[in-house]
Amino acid sequence: MEFEEKTIKRTEIFSGQVIRVAVDDVQLPEGKGQSKRELIFHNGAVAVIAITPENKLILVKQYRKAIEATSYEIPAGKLEVGENADPKAAALRELEEETGYTADLDLVYDFYTAIGFCNEKIKLYSASHLTKVENPREQDADETLELYQVTLDEAKKLVASGDICDAKTIIALQYWEMKENLKR
Amino acid sequence: MEFEEKTIKRTEIFSGQVIRVAVDDVQLPEGKGQSKRELIFHNGAVAVIAITPENKLILVKQYRKAIEATSYEIPAGKLEVGENADPKAAALRELEEETGYTADLDLVYDFYTAIGFCNEKIKLYSASHLTKVENPREQDADETLELYQVTLDEAKKLVASGDICDAKTIIALQYWEMKENLKR
Repeated sequence: MEFEEKTIKRTEIFSGQVIRVAVDDVQLPEGKGQSKRELIFHNGAVAVIAITPENKLILVKQYRKAIEATSYEIPAGKLEVGENADPKAAALRELEEETGYTADLDLVYDFYTAIGFCNEKIKLYSASHLTKVENPREQDADETLELYQVTLDEAKKLVASGDICDAKTIIALQYWEMKENLKR
Repeated sequence: MEFEEKTIKRTEIFSGQVIRVAVDDVQLPEGKGQSKRELIFHNGAVAVIAITPENKLILVKQYRKAIEATSYEIPAGKLEVGENADPKAAALRELEEETGYTADLDLVYDFYTAIGFCNEKIKLYSASHLTKVENPREQDADETLELYQVTLDEAKKLVASGDICDAKTIIALQYWEMKENLKR
């Protein structure tokens, strides 16, 4: 079976600091004619599952304008331009800026967040050997964050209440729960 | 601590069939001045974890223009306008159109895919009592799909090869693996 949708024409709509927007006229495969695809391009992001020696997950509470609400999420951040070559360094920077910790990082998953229309890919790392940084790098000037450390049961309650409500944090929680189950 | 970012001005950039794009000038909390937020608005989507009586997961292979590649995903689809009141009906429709099955559905998670800039929320259902529909509703005219049924081990290989690469399908696989582990 043929799958590829060939671009006949791309219309650039918007080019911002975080996203680019385009609409492609595409030739559908299998003789199905033409269609339009609305597309968002993003430079990618990193996120970190950081469990303290007390077996608590570090979460960041912050305001998310797209949903007009706060949420509790694992530490994460966008890849800056030029950082694609070294995403682990970007993850360490975000972890330090947002939590004041550094760590050893291992890649757990690398996934598209909204594959139907957007190419944002998140590299999700698991942190080990968490240690406090003495003079950590400062947060971004436009970020307001509050830090939390929660047990697995507390995290599940935050899912049930809707305070944890995003894909990367749910993937992190399921990963943590599976690791915990292996310990038993 | 104050979190809310108040909109000073919204600039509408694009209004398409699937997404709307806006840029907000916002007043940051805690006296931090102003910033801009690039925002994508989306009507939401549904997705289904469908395990056959043979204990295989139903996956759909399709082309994703945003990444210029095919991927293997759980059955899913956008909520049409007006369907927000009955997302389970939308999930049943997508399941039938894409796989030819109907089922009983239970909500597992309700999550934002790309919370940093987009309000798309996916309702993820788990299917039970899967049964073949005799004359299933047809696929959307602009979709080209290939169906697969995979074991958990096969699914993990598709993750390792990058053929499964999106958040909702990874959440589904973790959920399935935890259920399998409970059976032991």
